[in-house]
Amino acid sequence: MKIALLLYDGMAPLDAIGPYEVMRNVPGWEVLTVSQEKGEVRDEARTLGLTGDHAFADVTAADVVLVPGGDGKRPLMQDEELLEWLREVDRTTKWTTSVCTGSLLLGAAGLLEGKRATGHWLYLEQLREFGAEPVGGRYVEDGKTITAAGVSAGIDMALYLVSRELGPEVAQAVQLGIEYDPSPPFDAGSPKKAPTEIVDLVKAVTSGE
Amino acid sequence: MKIALLLYDGMAPLDAIGPYEVMRNVPGWEVLTVSQEKGEVRDEARTLGLTGDHAFADVTAADVVLVPGGDGKRPLMQDEELLEWLREVDRTTKWTTSVCTGSLLLGAAGLLEGKRATGHWLYLEQLREFGAEPVGGRYVEDGKTITAAGVSAGIDMALYLVSRELGPEVAQAVQLGIEYDPSPPFDAGSPKKAPTEIVDLVKAVTSGE
Repeated sequence: MKIALLLYDGMAPLDAIGPYEVMRNVPGWEVLTVSQEKGEVRDEARTLGLTGDHAFADVTAADVVLVPGGDGKRPLMQDEELLEWLREVDRTTKWTTSVCTGSLLLGAAGLLEGKRATGHWLYLEQLREFGAEPVGGRYVEDGKTITAAGVSAGIDMALYLVSRELGPEVAQAVQLGIEYDPSPPFDAGSPKKAPTEIVDLVKAVTSGE
Repeated sequence: MKIALLLYDGMAPLDAIGPYEVMRNVPGWEVLTVSQEKGEVRDEARTLGLTGDHAFADVTAADVVLVPGGDGKRPLMQDEELLEWLREVDRTTKWTTSVCTGSLLLGAAGLLEGKRATGHWLYLEQLREFGAEPVGGRYVEDGKTITAAGVSAGIDMALYLVSRELGPEVAQAVQLGIEYDPSPPFDAGSPKKAPTEIVDLVKAVTSGE
C-alpha cells in the first residue's frame, strides 16, 4: 500500500504524525510525504519543521491519501492547485482520509458531497457547506472515505484502517508496538465530557479562527 | 517555559510529536527542536524528515527537556556528545522527561540512578543497567524526572506535566483542543491486555533490536 501523507504550512502536526506512526509500522506499507513544493513546511505554531519529500506533481496516485487539519487549511480551501491534486489522487485511491479540519479540505475539493463525515468538534457544522452530513464520532466511514475527529483521533482512525485492510491481528500488533493504551490524566477530550467552563474557554480562544 | 525537544536520526516520531502537540498549545510555552547538528533528521523508518532548528551548542539550558525513543537511541547510548548535552541541560531543568526508550538515553547519561522510571514495555528491564528501578505505568514521576511508556504515552505524560505546572483547567483545555478522547478500535495497547499471540508476535518481530 502506498500512502500519500499531505503536509502543508500551518498544519497541526499530530494530525499527520499520529496516523503516520501507525501506518509506517505496517509491513509492506510505504508512506510518502507530499507537499505543494518539495521541502520543509512549518506547523501551525511555526516551531516545528517537517519535510515534504515529494511535490504534488510527483505523486498523482496512491492507495491511501491522508489530509491533516490545522489553521493552514484556510487559505488552502481556495487553493485550486491543492484541490485539483486532491481530486486527482482521490480518483486513484482505495481510501481517502482526513483528520481534524482536514475534512474541510476534502469538502472544498468536492469529495464529501452527500457523505457522512466528521472533523474537529468546533468545525463540524461547517461541513454542511460542502454538502456533507456532519455526524460526529471518533471516525466516520462512508464508502471509501474515512474522516476522523480532532487532532489525536487520527491514531484511532489509522488503527481502524489497518484492521479494515489486514484484519484485527495486524492492527492489534501495531497498537501494542506503539503501546497505545491511552490513559489521559483527565476525561476532558470531548465537549460532551469536559466541564462547561472549559468548553467555553476553548470556544473563546478559537473564535474567529 | 522553554522546552528543549530532542530530535535524532532513527527516532520514533510520535514520541516527540505527541507531547509537542500538547506543549505547543500551552500559552507562554515555547518548544525548541534540538538536534546534534542543526538541520533535518530522519525517523526510524527513514520516510519522515523533521527539522532540528537548533544545535546542541545553541541550547544548553531549558525548563523542560524531552527525550524521545526509537531505534536510533542505540548508537546514541554511547555518544558522549549527546550524553554530555543531556547532563548539561539537566542541570538547568525544572523537569527532565522522556518517552518510550528515551528513558534508556536518560539512563545512559546517568540521570536515572536510584530513580523509579518507565519506558516501552519491551525495554523496561534494561533500565536496571543504569541503576533505575523499572516500575511500569503510563508515566512515572520521581523528583524532577518524568518518564513515559511507549510511543503514544507521551501525550498522556505531557498533559500531566501541564497540569503539574498550570493546574487541571489548562491541561483540560489543551486536551479538549486536541480532542484527545481516545477510542482505539481494540483494547490491545499493553501486554497485559493484548491477546498472548499478539504479544508473542510483537516480541518476535522486535527481538534482536
